[in-house]
Amino acid sequence: MPPLQGKVLVAQGGGPTAVINQSLVGAVLESRKFPQVTRVYGAQHGVTGIINEDFLDLTEATTHNLEQVAVTPSSGLLSTRDKPDAAYCREIFKVCKAHDVRYFFYVGGNDSADTCRIVNEQANEADYEMRVIHIPKTIDNDLKVTDHCPGYGSAAKYVAQAFGGVNLDNRALPGVYIGVVMGRHAGFLTAAASLARKYPDDGPHLIYLPERSFSKAKFIKDVKAAYKKYGRCIIAVSEGIVDSKGKAIALQFTNEKDSHGNIQLSGTGALGDLLSKWVRESTDIKRVRADTLGYIQRSFLGCVSEVDQHEAREVGEKAAQYSIWHNLDGSVAIRRIGDYAVEYFLARLKDVARDSVEMPSKFINRDGNYVTDSFKNYVRPLVGNLPTQARISAPLVPKLHGKGRAGR
Amino acid sequence: MPPLQGKVLVAQGGGPTAVINQSLVGAVLESRKFPQVTRVYGAQHGVTGIINEDFLDLTEATTHNLEQVAVTPSSGLLSTRDKPDAAYCREIFKVCKAHDVRYFFYVGGNDSADTCRIVNEQANEADYEMRVIHIPKTIDNDLKVTDHCPGYGSAAKYVAQAFGGVNLDNRALPGVYIGVVMGRHAGFLTAAASLARKYPDDGPHLIYLPERSFSKAKFIKDVKAAYKKYGRCIIAVSEGIVDSKGKAIALQFTNEKDSHGNIQLSGTGALGDLLSKWVRESTDIKRVRADTLGYIQRSFLGCVSEVDQHEAREVGEKAAQYSIWHNLDGSVAIRRIGDYAVEYFLARLKDVARDSVEMPSKFINRDGNYVTDSFKNYVRPLVGNLPTQARISAPLVPKLHGKGRAGR
Repeated sequence: MPPLQGKVLVAQGGGPTAVINQSLVGAVLESRKFPQVTRVYGAQHGVTGIINEDFLDLTEATTHNLEQVAVTPSSGLLSTRDKPDAAYCREIFKVCKAHDVRYFFYVGGNDSADTCRIVNEQANEADYEMRVIHIPKTIDNDLKVTDHCPGYGSAAKYVAQAFGGVNLDNRALPGVYIGVVMGRHAGFLTAAASLARKYPDDGPHLIYLPERSFSKAKFIKDVKAAYKKYGRCIIAVSEGIVDSKGKAIALQFTNEKDSHGNIQLSGTGALGDLLSKWVRESTDIKRVRADTLGYIQRSFLGCVSEVDQHEAREVGEKAAQYSIWHNLDGSVAIRRIGDYAVEYFLARLKDVARDSVEMPSKFINRDGNYVTDSFKNYVRPLVGNLPTQARISAPLVPKLHGKGRAGR
Repeated sequence: MPPLQGKVLVAQGGGPTAVINQSLVGAVLESRKFPQVTRVYGAQHGVTGIINEDFLDLTEATTHNLEQVAVTPSSGLLSTRDKPDAAYCREIFKVCKAHDVRYFFYVGGNDSADTCRIVNEQANEADYEMRVIHIPKTIDNDLKVTDHCPGYGSAAKYVAQAFGGVNLDNRALPGVYIGVVMGRHAGFLTAAASLARKYPDDGPHLIYLPERSFSKAKFIKDVKAAYKKYGRCIIAVSEGIVDSKGKAIALQFTNEKDSHGNIQLSGTGALGDLLSKWVRESTDIKRVRADTLGYIQRSFLGCVSEVDQHEAREVGEKAAQYSIWHNLDGSVAIRRIGDYAVEYFLARLKDVARDSVEMPSKFINRDGNYVTDSFKNYVRPLVGNLPTQARISAPLVPKLHGKGRAGR
């Protein structure tokens, strides 16, 4: 069988990550090595850019430019929230065919995998030879099959460094601190705050995840107990926490939905402010503060996990290799084969598309207010070393017991 | 005159910074070199720790431990919001005298400088030989006399990197983004967001500072104009913005005051949410998001300006040198003598105490919604290089003009 000759088309979808451009550049540079690849196109704004034919000719981007883009956070090709249905996918397929695209790589989450699946089926039905590969990315770490998702490790590192700093700040000026972390249905990112704990009394002291139902009464009880024990309390809470009926705690504040029909949970301080209010009303603690980590946690310039960066690059390269060398369709996935080592494999598109995963029970403590060591072992290699932090280690000076204060 | 023999006492006050421990460690290590210094004590939780005699004997901290603490953000000796009056200062002085403290160094802002001033006067009145040095720190950069304050450059770097990332995120998924930055009366920190702009159409597109009165009508007009021009709009806004009567825009949401009588502006998302609401109500822009940068901007683990780190170390060392070598009292200040070079000098305590400064008019544009090049030249060397970010540079592919979409 002669090699399949034609163009490569790459696009990026959904929320950006700190390393999504590594995957893009990995796919582009690897593709450019194959003689049967006539051109490498990049669609701007994901699938929207495909149906509008907004293509950049990446064959003519310099290697230096691409390497600079690789270390830049957020989607270099820009993104979209469009979630294509069958008709939309037919448009995608038609444009691909018109441009003689024979390899389509889409970097994204489960929705993007679904787009790949549909386009792939339509190409097969039309008897048009086209390889389709889904390249995984998400800060939520909620894709099926793969051990973890590129993009997660770097966002997790930001969250760990944020809570690491906040813990030091809160030690200096004690009180209750609530940090609201992204993650609509999966608590992986919020759970990464646990890496901030170095000394046994460090925060976060409590972690609330969307996988366990959230009760106001239990929350207040937990906060009081932690405050009593530590003289302060740092709480990491997922934006997606739900009550016992599965209704989002944040839901009462907003009705704005994106084009996927998802309620807007980020870009507002409402959940943090509500939890603050509850603590103020139910305790006599005066200093209560809440921050919402917001969009900065997925885009901050200059906070990246090295492992994440390398793996994101490799899944991009593997996409080109699986499809161009091996003529395969699928979703690139990561298998953990050591502590810490990984290998890559190709999952079926239908096994990754649409659905997502939550944190397994073994990662959440019995009380539902913290993570387990099993989770810490899982997440630590994905994040790597955190910056140095240390406490002063020096002996206490004996008090003179008011000797010098006799005149008072 | 024989050298003044006795103990050194160091303390840290007010809000922590990323480099406040450099000043602490600079003062401690330099003090330990002098034979007339019998011990070096550190008070825990600032002036509170002095009147409670909560001292650590830093003479017995290892150099390695202190160097690790130096690169750790937030106050290693812990902090306080206590603002001592004359009676409180008398207690401080008595404890100092009882412990034979002859050198008192207090790292903090204008309130800490005022404490130094009062304690210094009381020691003079009591004819007790004691040198008092104020070591400057604040992320707000609002101290008098000095060109800039240690702590500001690192917080400014965080703000610049945050807006740099948010700008990329917002390019990928366009809309209106509002980022609320710390700074009660001075806009220096908010203004640092301007460093995030690399390409001419990058955000932030608008910057609102407490030095100029904020009008809702003008704000909406500015946002509409920027959105029309760029197809998106990123806004950096100070938590301390005020209306034409000088009343804080955030004031209607909170009445919580700290012990200085200051209204709580941080630790709540209320201001950002209000501005979002105004944009939504007054325009037809659908995607409007607000983040409050919160406590993370002053404490984030792993974001420090090199220049800031070195200068913070040096002002600590200079405190020891001015007082122990030269037998002087005062506040260590920085003078800019080149582009970029500085020298240190000792200001009078009364010239730094109590009052603070705002951004000079030459740093703010005529419209009151951005900074000038003069400000950028001022701030850039304090922050140093930002992480790499680049856009893809590749030619557009000609469209096939629906050739492939004939079947639609």
